[in-house]
Amino acid sequence: MIRRISGGITAAKGFRAACCAAGIKYKGRTDMAMIVGDVPCRVAGTFTSNKVKAAPVLWDREIVESGAPVQAVVVNAGIANAATGKNGLDLCRATADCASAVLGVPASSVLLGSTGVIGPNLPLDRISAGISAMAETLSATQEAGTAASRAIMTTDTVNKEFAVTFDLLAADGNGTVPVTLGGMSKGSGMIHPNMCTMLGYITTDCDISRDLLVKALRTVVPDTFNMITVDGDTSTNDTLLLLSSGLAGNRPVTGEDESYSLFREALFSVCRDLAVLMASDGEGATHLVEMRVYHADTKENARTLARSVVGSSLVKAMIFGRDANCGRILCALGYAGPDFDPAVIEVYLHGEKETVCFYKDGCVQAFDEEKAAAILAEKKVCFSCDMKMGTEEATAWGCDLTHDYVTINGDYRS
Amino acid sequence: MIRRISGGITAAKGFRAACCAAGIKYKGRTDMAMIVGDVPCRVAGTFTSNKVKAAPVLWDREIVESGAPVQAVVVNAGIANAATGKNGLDLCRATADCASAVLGVPASSVLLGSTGVIGPNLPLDRISAGISAMAETLSATQEAGTAASRAIMTTDTVNKEFAVTFDLLAADGNGTVPVTLGGMSKGSGMIHPNMCTMLGYITTDCDISRDLLVKALRTVVPDTFNMITVDGDTSTNDTLLLLSSGLAGNRPVTGEDESYSLFREALFSVCRDLAVLMASDGEGATHLVEMRVYHADTKENARTLARSVVGSSLVKAMIFGRDANCGRILCALGYAGPDFDPAVIEVYLHGEKETVCFYKDGCVQAFDEEKAAAILAEKKVCFSCDMKMGTEEATAWGCDLTHDYVTINGDYRS
Repeated sequence: MIRRISGGITAAKGFRAACCAAGIKYKGRTDMAMIVGDVPCRVAGTFTSNKVKAAPVLWDREIVESGAPVQAVVVNAGIANAATGKNGLDLCRATADCASAVLGVPASSVLLGSTGVIGPNLPLDRISAGISAMAETLSATQEAGTAASRAIMTTDTVNKEFAVTFDLLAADGNGTVPVTLGGMSKGSGMIHPNMCTMLGYITTDCDISRDLLVKALRTVVPDTFNMITVDGDTSTNDTLLLLSSGLAGNRPVTGEDESYSLFREALFSVCRDLAVLMASDGEGATHLVEMRVYHADTKENARTLARSVVGSSLVKAMIFGRDANCGRILCALGYAGPDFDPAVIEVYLHGEKETVCFYKDGCVQAFDEEKAAAILAEKKVCFSCDMKMGTEEATAWGCDLTHDYVTINGDYRS
Repeated sequence: MIRRISGGITAAKGFRAACCAAGIKYKGRTDMAMIVGDVPCRVAGTFTSNKVKAAPVLWDREIVESGAPVQAVVVNAGIANAATGKNGLDLCRATADCASAVLGVPASSVLLGSTGVIGPNLPLDRISAGISAMAETLSATQEAGTAASRAIMTTDTVNKEFAVTFDLLAADGNGTVPVTLGGMSKGSGMIHPNMCTMLGYITTDCDISRDLLVKALRTVVPDTFNMITVDGDTSTNDTLLLLSSGLAGNRPVTGEDESYSLFREALFSVCRDLAVLMASDGEGATHLVEMRVYHADTKENARTLARSVVGSSLVKAMIFGRDANCGRILCALGYAGPDFDPAVIEVYLHGEKETVCFYKDGCVQAFDEEKAAAILAEKKVCFSCDMKMGTEEATAWGCDLTHDYVTINGDYRS
């Protein structure tokens, strides 16, 4: 059984965190964070699909794909180190060298993450000073993890962390041991999404082979981080890393058995909760929007249809305006791409307690406008669509489009 | 030589227009328009790619694809007649029957167009009364065409019409005769775009075979109407019709000769100007945005890259905020899909008189912020990107994302 516990990246054994105010761009707040493993860690990662990849993405990807162990992650907010050419890569190397010297770990075991404005160069002196300062305050406490999750925020309004624990057979065969998985993230997207970069870091003490770590992450992301959207803009910096210290004391997970299933389920739950929290904290958002597509013909079509609805500017604006303009849901399903029969599908609006049928038998239905308005006033607004084609389903999450989104993004650099 | 003249759908010989206030949804304004040919007309058309097609789209498509001649087009604003099932199609038939009786033309020669809210049924009594009233006031004057272009507006802030004229060899071989092409449109999109439906109607007196009429329209649309975007939402009702009365007296255009090229060029110019005007009048827009991609490897890649930039919420918001956050242009090129080398491409911002280099040699460039701010204050903002891959190019048009867009679409139904 998977249990939610408090905490984030320091919840699992073998991880310490720190943060500091390096003064990279923001004033009066922390803007750098560091995660350090007590031991070399196995790592899996996924990165932006954008053709224009930020320097830290190029740096991390090479290390993660090499399969070499990782022992530290250094993250900054304020400047993205993207579109910075050779300078940007040189800066990655210098940052890793600095962390290497300060922490006494190989430079090739230091991963990097940046989020913020595209274009400017990072100030190496401040980054270096920040790393030295953080090395002094590394801590395995829950507070240290939480502080790190705050330091990587940009336009986020809340910090984002989740942790879960579950039991696996002990390595010595004597009963079970608790295994923990915790993570933090910032921003609002991954593949489709994102205005200000999604960075996600998940740590675990589960003793699990690197191959299975990679497989678990690869199979969990398509239905979690890749199913959220804020504005359809995929960042140049999106990065999700999963580090395992292997210190839980469990019997190593080396095959796709029940233990692996449990680990994958725990990872799914942390990834989904972080992802939904990012959608709900989308820039300027006042509502979380969920779209569930079921009885679809293929999994990929279900995902595409669900994402199209939460990505529609018109749907997003109507939710902001609490206007039950249900034709827009139908319209967004219709231009998503997958084929379906508009004469048979059914579309519903779900509140916490009530459900309204929007569309059935090829027609928009007469519905109780007051009931719909009450549902649209809830913080979380859910829609569903029965495609009546097969057995696949998918859920996507997004947020509404508000005046504040326009304000935030009309003047992001200043 | 193609010459711009004033007027719209009544500019070409053989077309009369009328409009009326039928009281379908709006009060105190006209909301129906009718175009009637003096003779049966050849017709070409393109329709929405949305899987959910409004009833008038299904009605028109069958007639247009049959190749039969057309003699009238009846359009209403306020209700889209979409997601209305069998009722909606019955209403199309009844509307065509009514026009047939009043005008004395076959019901199968009556095309229909609707724009507005998805879901409600059209009131047949008001539609019928409107058709009878319009039949009384049909006129070939420029004023009648302009009034019709106003009657089909929804959230448009300006009516949209253009006309051009050019000379072709006379049918009797005695010198040349003027041939005219004029059109009107409403809304803001076609394939990618559109919140409130794009409807476009173009009339010509050119004597040209139906096959060439269809071919000219099919080859012109991908670089005109399909290159604009307002909000990425493809309507259920998008319709573009091209009607030819053949009354100009020109030697019939039956092959892909110089006359056809001239006709196609004139059609391109009317379509492009109507399309750009729609982008510029996008809901809530304060700027027209143009993105030109050149030296691309393929035409389709050039189009995709250009559309991605004008479709990006972040780019749109930054233009509203007059913020030269050039990384967002690069980001939108990067997630568009086509492959390219970020180390060699170059991105520019163009004002009416000045040009600023945003990105070159893999790096965002240091640029004159004041000069950039001055350009971003202009009504039309242009970007270009040199892909350095080949010889293809494409231009896309969009608008900025503003508070007013959110306001308009948060409360569209009321």
